[in-house]
Amino acid sequence: MSKYQNIREEAYKANMLLPKLGLVLFTFGNASAADQEDQVFAIKPSGVPYEELSPGNMVIVDFEGKTVEGDLRPSSDTQTHAVLYKHWSEIGGIVHTHSTYGTAWAQSLKPIPIYGTTHADHTTAAIPCAPPMSDDKIAGNYEYETGFQIMDHLKACGLSYMEVEMILVGNHAPFTWGKDAAKAVYNSAVVEEIAKMALLTQQLKPQVQPMKDALIKKHFDRKHGVDSYYGQ
Amino acid sequence: MSKYQNIREEAYKANMLLPKLGLVLFTFGNASAADQEDQVFAIKPSGVPYEELSPGNMVIVDFEGKTVEGDLRPSSDTQTHAVLYKHWSEIGGIVHTHSTYGTAWAQSLKPIPIYGTTHADHTTAAIPCAPPMSDDKIAGNYEYETGFQIMDHLKACGLSYMEVEMILVGNHAPFTWGKDAAKAVYNSAVVEEIAKMALLTQQLKPQVQPMKDALIKKHFDRKHGVDSYYGQ
Amino acid sequence: MSKYQNIREEAYKANMLLPKLGLVLFTFGNASAADQEDQVFAIKPSGVPYEELSPGNMVIVDFEGKTVEGDLRPSSDTQTHAVLYKHWSEIGGIVHTHSTYGTAWAQSLKPIPIYGTTHADHTTAAIPCAPPMSDDKIAGNYEYETGFQIMDHLKACGLSYMEVEMILVGNHAPFTWGKDAAKAVYNSAVVEEIAKMALLTQQLKPQVQPMKDALIKKHFDRKHGVDSYYGQ
Amino acid sequence: MSKYQNIREEAYKANMLLPKLGLVLFTFGNASAADQEDQVFAIKPSGVPYEELSPGNMVIVDFEGKTVEGDLRPSSDTQTHAVLYKHWSEIGGIVHTHSTYGTAWAQSLKPIPIYGTTHADHTTAAIPCAPPMSDDKIAGNYEYETGFQIMDHLKACGLSYMEVEMILVGNHAPFTWGKDAAKAVYNSAVVEEIAKMALLTQQLKPQVQPMKDALIKKHFDRKHGVDSYYGQ
Repeated sequence: MSKYQNIREEAYKANMLLPKLGLVLFTFGNASAADQEDQVFAIKPSGVPYEELSPGNMVIVDFEGKTVEGDLRPSSDTQTHAVLYKHWSEIGGIVHTHSTYGTAWAQSLKPIPIYGTTHADHTTAAIPCAPPMSDDKIAGNYEYETGFQIMDHLKACGLSYMEVEMILVGNHAPFTWGKDAAKAVYNSAVVEEIAKMALLTQQLKPQVQPMKDALIKKHFDRKHGVDSYYGQ
Repeated sequence: MSKYQNIREEAYKANMLLPKLGLVLFTFGNASAADQEDQVFAIKPSGVPYEELSPGNMVIVDFEGKTVEGDLRPSSDTQTHAVLYKHWSEIGGIVHTHSTYGTAWAQSLKPIPIYGTTHADHTTAAIPCAPPMSDDKIAGNYEYETGFQIMDHLKACGLSYMEVEMILVGNHAPFTWGKDAAKAVYNSAVVEEIAKMALLTQQLKPQVQPMKDALIKKHFDRKHGVDSYYGQ
Repeated sequence: MSKYQNIREEAYKANMLLPKLGLVLFTFGNASAADQEDQVFAIKPSGVPYEELSPGNMVIVDFEGKTVEGDLRPSSDTQTHAVLYKHWSEIGGIVHTHSTYGTAWAQSLKPIPIYGTTHADHTTAAIPCAPPMSDDKIAGNYEYETGFQIMDHLKACGLSYMEVEMILVGNHAPFTWGKDAAKAVYNSAVVEEIAKMALLTQQLKPQVQPMKDALIKKHFDRKHGVDSYYGQ
Repeated sequence: MSKYQNIREEAYKANMLLPKLGLVLFTFGNASAADQEDQVFAIKPSGVPYEELSPGNMVIVDFEGKTVEGDLRPSSDTQTHAVLYKHWSEIGGIVHTHSTYGTAWAQSLKPIPIYGTTHADHTTAAIPCAPPMSDDKIAGNYEYETGFQIMDHLKACGLSYMEVEMILVGNHAPFTWGKDAAKAVYNSAVVEEIAKMALLTQQLKPQVQPMKDALIKKHFDRKHGVDSYYGQ
């Protein structure tokens, strides 16, 4: 039995949730689960239909993006996952989807403003949208550069990856992360729901303003603050 | 066996209907069932996934918001439920969801106008949208104040809680109520459907006007008037 | 066994298809099946949830709207069905729903223009939208008058009930009919799909024009003309 | 056993996927699978509900559109399939649906611009929209002419059927194709998803521009280029 059985199971379960939650069509998405101590992660094999996945065919990759264990080619987005795991030592899971509304926002190159408590329950900021990369980066090591594009844009927004666990990559689609793969999947469903609500809100009121700071702070704190009182 | 078994069962069933009706993602919602005589209600425990709910893990809370029976922490919105039950002696159930279209209207800070009989079958008025609270109330006993915000806004609209069993809380989401928890759930599905239809109607005709009073009155009366002839 | 067993079965099956096709929430709709020779029809009992329906609890009503057989009160829309069956001797089924997109069009008081072959496969005209009735008709025998409102508006549009088997009633919702209840259900799903497509088409192109006559004629004829070649 | 058993099975499976993927209502669509060597294809019988389909009732038709084997009348769109198979020797499957968003774009007579990588993963160009035919072609051999309309418009756009495997027919709906029927079904789901995302993107940003060439090229190449690294 693989010494990576735990992250294999975790990555497998996370991947299987994506179609169940309506977040992926065919193979348009991938989830990974990392072991930060061993500096490896388990990720979906590229282009394999969800119904053929198993813990055993997850691919084990190190933080440089090299396959450590597994016969299949890992997800084409593997380098992006590797870069993020390497630089963000507190995360244990990453998810990438092309979910419909999140992708539409990414295609519009716009961040998603905070219009309500559903959003504020998860982050105190607009969900950032990283701009498309320069042509030479695109032509170069594209997926590797995507990782840096995500990190650089978060920094440019003055945000840490602990405060906001989701981002849109311009002209592309959402990436989310979290302490483990299940949390990253949760965040990918949250970003899709927030994206849909925000689009509908703008349709109802084109000049809508973000909600006020007091309410943003309250809702985030009741879930995540020192005196949080949400959950058990 | 708990003396509150009846409201435990009622609250449990009501909560389980919320994901089934597509009204909640993850744990973004809660239902409660009250015993007005004993001045207690059963409510969903906070942050517990729907698939782990049972009548036994509903939390019994009194109308001051204090837990009477149960090991788990009650929903973070418990104080709002408590305030409403305490002041509205005729209701036996309350539901709060972040359903997509209802929440979009709440985020736009707009009441939902009556554009058709689907709406008028349930209320003769626009579905009100309470404005966000003042910053000090938000920073204070937020969920408790939310209860008063709902009651005050209904009054300001000249409506009683018997006439309209649903409201939007600005920048937040819908709350609904009724004679029992099942009716409150029913109302939460109704507000979502009305919200979607009204948004689509405005898209088809930006300058649409509410429908005329004769039709509003007729449809409400045939379901709820003295000579109602809907149902058995 | 009831001599009306056939239309009981037919009406029951038709009603059960409505929630399955996503056309009704709760009890917001009804289907009936008529026996034109005996001048009676079987219709859903009022306000009874779909899961409690059976052929046996369909209500048998004559073309004057009087109950002939059955203990339950018939649908509140029974008089509308009765009027249409009485005057349109070639139809054997009627369906009324509050399906989301069809209702949004009805709420906008606009007919649905023909933008494509999906629509033309079913009718050569825009789907008419009858205007709301006068206040005194609404206050009078409302459902009975709704039947005449439908017939009068079809005539005013220069259409026969054989050419177009679907209509919107302004501020209300769609009614459809056909040679039997199954065809009326089919038409209710078609009007919802056409309504959604037409709304999206207008969003993509606000100044869109109806498609040209040659194409309208071709598609209708290949399904319904003398030399039709669709189906078996 | 029919010598065409293989394409019967392939066409049957492809047709059954259409309702499962939410791409057809009732019988509004058809899939076929061709044997380019024998110059025949298996196609859905016209107007037969999906639940009554079987490999055995697929109709075998030659590339002139004549039935070779089968008792049922083939799909009313058979001539379009025949023309495309005859002229495009590299394809083995064709699908036609009236999927909601794809049809809305077709009804707007607009090609679908490339706004993101979801689109670029499948084609480097906007998804073309062939204009409606002239009135005399419509009145003539309509479905046969539709095949030429598709081929001619592709050419007019400077595209080969190998580069782009999907097209909209103006005022009608999407057609897709591929090396086999399964690929054509896949493409029909892709065009629907891209169509929805593009519509939402325009709603978020009415003046949105197509994404830049470097990114279009990169995403297409990583899936389809000489050095493609997507899939196994």
